[in-house]
Amino acid sequence: MTEPRHLQSACSKSTAASSAAAAAKTPAEKEVKLWGGRFQESVTDAVERFTESISFDKALYKHDIMGSRAHATMLAKQGLMSDSDRDSILKGLDEIERLIESGEFVWRTDREDVHMNIEAALTDVIGEPAKKLHTARSRNDQVQTDFRLWCRDAIDRTVEYIKKLQVALVTLGLKNEGLIIPGYTHLQRAQPVLLQHYLLSYVEQLERDIGRFLDCRVRLNFCPLGACALAGTGLPIDRFMTSDALGFTAPMRNSIDAVSDRDFIMELLAANSITAVHLSRLGEDWVLWASEEFGFITPSDSVSTGSSIMPQKKNPDPMELVRGKSARVVGNLITLLTLCKGLPFAYNRDLQEDKEPVFDSVKAVIGMLEVSAEFARNVSFNHERILKALPAGHLDATTLADYLVKKGMPFRTSHDVVGRSVALCVSKNCQLQDLGLDELKSISPVFEEDVYEFLGVENSVKKFSSYGSTGSACVASQMDYWVNYLGINKI
Amino acid sequence: MTEPRHLQSACSKSTAASSAAAAAKTPAEKEVKLWGGRFQESVTDAVERFTESISFDKALYKHDIMGSRAHATMLAKQGLMSDSDRDSILKGLDEIERLIESGEFVWRTDREDVHMNIEAALTDVIGEPAKKLHTARSRNDQVQTDFRLWCRDAIDRTVEYIKKLQVALVTLGLKNEGLIIPGYTHLQRAQPVLLQHYLLSYVEQLERDIGRFLDCRVRLNFCPLGACALAGTGLPIDRFMTSDALGFTAPMRNSIDAVSDRDFIMELLAANSITAVHLSRLGEDWVLWASEEFGFITPSDSVSTGSSIMPQKKNPDPMELVRGKSARVVGNLITLLTLCKGLPFAYNRDLQEDKEPVFDSVKAVIGMLEVSAEFARNVSFNHERILKALPAGHLDATTLADYLVKKGMPFRTSHDVVGRSVALCVSKNCQLQDLGLDELKSISPVFEEDVYEFLGVENSVKKFSSYGSTGSACVASQMDYWVNYLGINKI
Amino acid sequence: MTEPRHLQSACSKSTAASSAAAAAKTPAEKEVKLWGGRFQESVTDAVERFTESISFDKALYKHDIMGSRAHATMLAKQGLMSDSDRDSILKGLDEIERLIESGEFVWRTDREDVHMNIEAALTDVIGEPAKKLHTARSRNDQVQTDFRLWCRDAIDRTVEYIKKLQVALVTLGLKNEGLIIPGYTHLQRAQPVLLQHYLLSYVEQLERDIGRFLDCRVRLNFCPLGACALAGTGLPIDRFMTSDALGFTAPMRNSIDAVSDRDFIMELLAANSITAVHLSRLGEDWVLWASEEFGFITPSDSVSTGSSIMPQKKNPDPMELVRGKSARVVGNLITLLTLCKGLPFAYNRDLQEDKEPVFDSVKAVIGMLEVSAEFARNVSFNHERILKALPAGHLDATTLADYLVKKGMPFRTSHDVVGRSVALCVSKNCQLQDLGLDELKSISPVFEEDVYEFLGVENSVKKFSSYGSTGSACVASQMDYWVNYLGINKI
Amino acid sequence: MTEPRHLQSACSKSTAASSAAAAAKTPAEKEVKLWGGRFQESVTDAVERFTESISFDKALYKHDIMGSRAHATMLAKQGLMSDSDRDSILKGLDEIERLIESGEFVWRTDREDVHMNIEAALTDVIGEPAKKLHTARSRNDQVQTDFRLWCRDAIDRTVEYIKKLQVALVTLGLKNEGLIIPGYTHLQRAQPVLLQHYLLSYVEQLERDIGRFLDCRVRLNFCPLGACALAGTGLPIDRFMTSDALGFTAPMRNSIDAVSDRDFIMELLAANSITAVHLSRLGEDWVLWASEEFGFITPSDSVSTGSSIMPQKKNPDPMELVRGKSARVVGNLITLLTLCKGLPFAYNRDLQEDKEPVFDSVKAVIGMLEVSAEFARNVSFNHERILKALPAGHLDATTLADYLVKKGMPFRTSHDVVGRSVALCVSKNCQLQDLGLDELKSISPVFEEDVYEFLGVENSVKKFSSYGSTGSACVASQMDYWVNYLGINKI
Repeated sequence: MTEPRHLQSACSKSTAASSAAAAAKTPAEKEVKLWGGRFQESVTDAVERFTESISFDKALYKHDIMGSRAHATMLAKQGLMSDSDRDSILKGLDEIERLIESGEFVWRTDREDVHMNIEAALTDVIGEPAKKLHTARSRNDQVQTDFRLWCRDAIDRTVEYIKKLQVALVTLGLKNEGLIIPGYTHLQRAQPVLLQHYLLSYVEQLERDIGRFLDCRVRLNFCPLGACALAGTGLPIDRFMTSDALGFTAPMRNSIDAVSDRDFIMELLAANSITAVHLSRLGEDWVLWASEEFGFITPSDSVSTGSSIMPQKKNPDPMELVRGKSARVVGNLITLLTLCKGLPFAYNRDLQEDKEPVFDSVKAVIGMLEVSAEFARNVSFNHERILKALPAGHLDATTLADYLVKKGMPFRTSHDVVGRSVALCVSKNCQLQDLGLDELKSISPVFEEDVYEFLGVENSVKKFSSYGSTGSACVASQMDYWVNYLGINKI
Repeated sequence: MTEPRHLQSACSKSTAASSAAAAAKTPAEKEVKLWGGRFQESVTDAVERFTESISFDKALYKHDIMGSRAHATMLAKQGLMSDSDRDSILKGLDEIERLIESGEFVWRTDREDVHMNIEAALTDVIGEPAKKLHTARSRNDQVQTDFRLWCRDAIDRTVEYIKKLQVALVTLGLKNEGLIIPGYTHLQRAQPVLLQHYLLSYVEQLERDIGRFLDCRVRLNFCPLGACALAGTGLPIDRFMTSDALGFTAPMRNSIDAVSDRDFIMELLAANSITAVHLSRLGEDWVLWASEEFGFITPSDSVSTGSSIMPQKKNPDPMELVRGKSARVVGNLITLLTLCKGLPFAYNRDLQEDKEPVFDSVKAVIGMLEVSAEFARNVSFNHERILKALPAGHLDATTLADYLVKKGMPFRTSHDVVGRSVALCVSKNCQLQDLGLDELKSISPVFEEDVYEFLGVENSVKKFSSYGSTGSACVASQMDYWVNYLGINKI
Repeated sequence: MTEPRHLQSACSKSTAASSAAAAAKTPAEKEVKLWGGRFQESVTDAVERFTESISFDKALYKHDIMGSRAHATMLAKQGLMSDSDRDSILKGLDEIERLIESGEFVWRTDREDVHMNIEAALTDVIGEPAKKLHTARSRNDQVQTDFRLWCRDAIDRTVEYIKKLQVALVTLGLKNEGLIIPGYTHLQRAQPVLLQHYLLSYVEQLERDIGRFLDCRVRLNFCPLGACALAGTGLPIDRFMTSDALGFTAPMRNSIDAVSDRDFIMELLAANSITAVHLSRLGEDWVLWASEEFGFITPSDSVSTGSSIMPQKKNPDPMELVRGKSARVVGNLITLLTLCKGLPFAYNRDLQEDKEPVFDSVKAVIGMLEVSAEFARNVSFNHERILKALPAGHLDATTLADYLVKKGMPFRTSHDVVGRSVALCVSKNCQLQDLGLDELKSISPVFEEDVYEFLGVENSVKKFSSYGSTGSACVASQMDYWVNYLGINKI
Repeated sequence: MTEPRHLQSACSKSTAASSAAAAAKTPAEKEVKLWGGRFQESVTDAVERFTESISFDKALYKHDIMGSRAHATMLAKQGLMSDSDRDSILKGLDEIERLIESGEFVWRTDREDVHMNIEAALTDVIGEPAKKLHTARSRNDQVQTDFRLWCRDAIDRTVEYIKKLQVALVTLGLKNEGLIIPGYTHLQRAQPVLLQHYLLSYVEQLERDIGRFLDCRVRLNFCPLGACALAGTGLPIDRFMTSDALGFTAPMRNSIDAVSDRDFIMELLAANSITAVHLSRLGEDWVLWASEEFGFITPSDSVSTGSSIMPQKKNPDPMELVRGKSARVVGNLITLLTLCKGLPFAYNRDLQEDKEPVFDSVKAVIGMLEVSAEFARNVSFNHERILKALPAGHLDATTLADYLVKKGMPFRTSHDVVGRSVALCVSKNCQLQDLGLDELKSISPVFEEDVYEFLGVENSVKKFSSYGSTGSACVASQMDYWVNYLGINKI
């Protein structure tokens, strides 16, 4: 409930004639010195620099003005302000918004934060009526209102970018229909999977990410306005009216909670962090795949950097940075958790530190999503090279085990038989499908001619049949689901 | 898709006569040495110690057995196992569960993890049929199934403890009806609030916490079983059947996603962290309030430690530890995020590290909730001392400003008038209600006799009227809401 | 070893006549399009925005120029550049530095980073010779050189501010000689301590902080220049010469290590975090002490914010923010650790993310130090109020126990006797010194008349005598030590 | 300064006859109920479970006993205890240590922590003299003394394991003399490097890690004993004597600092985290190298897991877990920083949470070091396969650029010439050394016959000559340095 020096001075001015001498001073000096005549000195420069927030919280200007419009309209409706005062205020706010968006607005550090900058500018523009705007409001509930509105928009933008990435991944799958890649465990080749299957695994992750963002949106969409400093007010305001006007579900039920909790930010940063970790794994995969050793993909010029000295080189920088930027998103989450840990109730100035981490993480994650989609749209898979290398690793071994189980062999026994079959291949330096039926039969009499329908990577992929598996039919039906769900026009 | 050494040996044993010499060795030696005859040496002791997970993942035994029951039943239904094999397995699993719960089960490090310990013990108990249990299953999907079941239970337990704390806080409010305490901003006294209002602010936070846990529960309640190593299987399993049997909403749609993502854990740890931060603030408040300087509360003997040398001293240790234990919960979240950051697809052994942080955080948060509730049930408020100190801080100043606004004065002007009134009190070392009407009128002619209905802390609290405010009527209605919602029997 | 698009174009230009059409394009377009004629498209806008670093790494300009000066001088000395080329380069660098510091320099995003901006500008200014500057150098070793130089300066500045805070704390102690405050455990009053003793506890912490910064400085002060992309060079450079010129201890011994490790940053951020945590505790103490309930201190107007409505209120905002800003410093450390975790060797683009966290933490910690010192210089202790409240808590109880031990009573027994004495006081609502000798003797016959020399807070403090204790003599000697060590002029 | 319930009861027992009834109760009940007769109820089970520390702090037993020995010896020397009491205590402590190490000691939760368990057991064993041990000591300084001793040992062990890993890496280099591997930037092949050069880059990192641990050791090696609860004591103790006896540099200078700061732990955990991040990168490299795609290394059976179904498969599990376990080490650091952030002075119960993260991180890092060394000793490099793949990537391109610079061409121009040469190779699908001199001359007339001495990966490596480069001679001299420094017997 800190009182802004500027407006304190404004108040004083209204009851005391400001001397000509005062008028000659710079605005900042004047405002501070007039502060109720009680404070003998202004804060030191170091303190002013250290405590200001205008350098970053001006990002909230649009939502601050939005909140003030709703508040003024409600005050007039409730008889706490005349209609003409309201009209002056609304007009003045329009003008200030215009000034800000045209770049003409001068943000002043001595006016501390976005709220005071706008209110003081409003006083400059419309005079006396501006003094009524802060009725039944405090910066404590005002900033929470602004920030919840900002976060709501940020969530909507983020979800939009997640969807774009989902579309890009599914589209990339459509472009590479039928492509089989090795599936890994321990980064060792294990089983063959369709590229589409791989890509959909990220689409699934991203869908849960959307769920987290939307759950967070539902939970944060309650209106703190009217909680005032911390205890509410005795003036006859209508909190439901402002809540409705701003698109909130309802006013928050407890004024102390409204000004002191920051859980909606922690939840948003946690959702951001999880998405960022998901993307970091995509980044890792694609950086690996762009290496000479894997050689699965070639990014286009538009999403890579080259080297004049090694023209064949294409560095997948954007995906490295997608991986790398996940770190700051995690760091920002920690900042918020550490910030709020152990704070006494209700509002503490520490909480001013809650904004920069959010601004930074939202920007980073949207960038990561956007650039990953751009990369997906601009990468080509080296089908031939992948195909050529596929036999390495005996990826069809588990399909062979399934074959034996189908013939009635206990699973653990089938594993052993397959193991000895592969061992034979290793000693002969060949693939499973190259073994003769007699060789196979010498390992187990269960093998029959139909075994060859299960061998080779392509046969192997076809044989997968369980729900959610990499089997061609299963994946096709999943692809259909997502193509429809995301509204993609099939090529 | 690592094959367990034990069962590899078991397989080998079934096709090769084990020599008498081998039989004489200790079980661990025997199992390892027989490993397909191919591995020449067992892992070093350092590696075994470093990579084992049985020391902590045995906590999953109940859910592992639950999963195996559902899996065996499904395999039999699908013709992948005979009914009599299934019955042997189910009976064997019952026996193993009994052995574990009675403490007779011997967990063996050479059998690596909970899955292999149970499967190998099953082989010991029922012999051959046990070899069929792992059909169409891998430890990769098995552990995810177990862990999702465990987390689901953990969420249910946590929510239960959150509700108990809510009940304890509301009950504490009922016991202290009408008690007014100072409300703080910047830890400076600002406005009077009802203790009930303060307590409900935590009840609100906890209610959102429940929301986060339940959202997480909905999102994680999909069944990975049948994803096998990473690609699914070609055997005719019914994933919907196992999913239903285990109470999941549906099988997961993508087998790669099923074995490689850990977002459900990150989300759970994030929910835990936010709750922990909430509780850390409660801890801070109550530690402050138990100090000589605040003197608001006295914890009972049952929730404090004393000192034989200073008998009046009661240390609020449990609430200090509630505050302190939030740190480990935050640390565990970071562990998970850092663990998963940048991992390539699909399963990597790193992911074995995902369990301990969850076990630790769930235990810590439940402990924090339980002990906070215990504290709330065992703390008494020092009404007299609080009341005596209430006038300090001119907590009724903003109510006076509201009075002036109601009389038509612009808000910023009213602030100035109140400021000068308080300044007068400070100079006279008295309270606002002690000022004479003439004194007030000399500051502003707007003051009238009715001003005294707004002065004094008790009047002040009564005057708050906005929705969600600390006004007596508002708080009473909120208390009613929660008493009903939580099913508390009013005393 | 990414090649900058700009200079690639520059190279191409030198061997191919640039068409008039090309010349008509904007500089950015031209530079990219000419890139070896091989890259068909420039990177997308999203990628350019996402991957640029010039918005933050321009902070390294001074050290980048410093490094280039040393490098050019060495190249000339080694015959890899003519003296006149060197002179052109040195003159050009002077000019660029001047342009930057006068604000005339135009930073271009299409030139990616600080290195390319400066090198390209050098080409603009001096032409052909600029092309020789990057001989036997890569941006990989260049950025590490710049950043180590920057960190070295940051450490020096930080240490300077730590010392200023030490001086401020000791000076605050000198101003409040003899003031006794309660010492706390569990935030419960435990024993009396001299304010000077309390203040010196922070001076000690800060002295260890300096040690950590200086150790970090020693360890980072090795020169990576000449490591080139990652493998060194075949050109006859003299790495010892550049290392000396830049004030490094020696060149780094391993070129791969030189470009890929970031441990010096992690160590610096860890040192910053520990200092930040120290300061957060000071912040917590002083916020508590400024509360109505503690009432120990009053900050002056110049380091607090007020409220026009409650003129007596002084919010200790700077110390709240000192406490709060510790969170971002911790978050930044996590960012770095998470960033580097699991990166393959050697240079990865992820590492570009290493700078912002350091810039932010260094600024935050210096601000926290500066503002804490400002606060210490502008706070007054309320001696009377502290003194009046001192008897509360029986702070002399342990001194009484020492008395009994000196008389030969076993410690655990003495504790019990004192406990009963205090219990008697509690029942009589008096202090220990108010008990009669007969009353004391009825508890234990060991008490004699000299007991009263040990009772009362002032006596109690005098009796402490162990090295490092709060005893008046001990503290005085410690104060002397620090006054001398820090070169403070005693008042 | 919490008084332990047990000893309070012990005290009471000494002045009051314990009734037969009391004697009949279980020890826990008895001890609690007798607590000075003042506490009416014992703490609840939930609180006891939540606040106990004996489950983990018993790890400090050896250092606790060590501290008590030094303390008792000093007390006797200073006349605060008779020599015979001292002898009883020393003998009793010997007995307790024996009981603990033989597993006969019963740790009791109702005795809260390691200090009280040992002191109470001492009372059980030797009776009355035990009551004098806690003279001029508090658990606050005692636990800090124990923990500093423990950390000092942990550092010594960690450093030992770091050295072992250095030896293993250098030895691995000796075994693979002359082996050239690709050096990467952006995980793209960039320049050839000697494996030895690569390995030494980790040896360098580890050497700095040792430096950090030893700096931490120097800084923490000061003795808190005698700081007592927080203010020191009035008894004539000799803190220098105990400090010497325990191998500390000196007693800590400030008693408040001694009991309240935990910076030595944060510093230790930061050192652990940096080492862990280093090792995570080694883990990442080696996991990549063990993949089918890279195929650089094959771990032996003793450090990998296999698969019975795919006998050729060797999962590098230990190195995956080395990478993965870095996460918990980072998480533990955050736990400590978050724990201490914003705590008021001096001792708070929160600080009990400082031990588990340290125990866990020290164990994890030592395990990571040990297993990495084991892996290094048990891995073989696939020379043939590496050699065969080396030409891919034109790793000699920058050496060619150096050649041109040596001939006098400006660096940026030489880059362009090499770029066009490589482009020619790409179009002809050949290596640089396969180009004819006429082809090269058609790109630049500067090329002469001697260019072929610079082409090919082996020539390329030989040409590197700068200090710290991968040049054969440079690396040989670095290897010599480390072989000598580490005392390795060359094979």
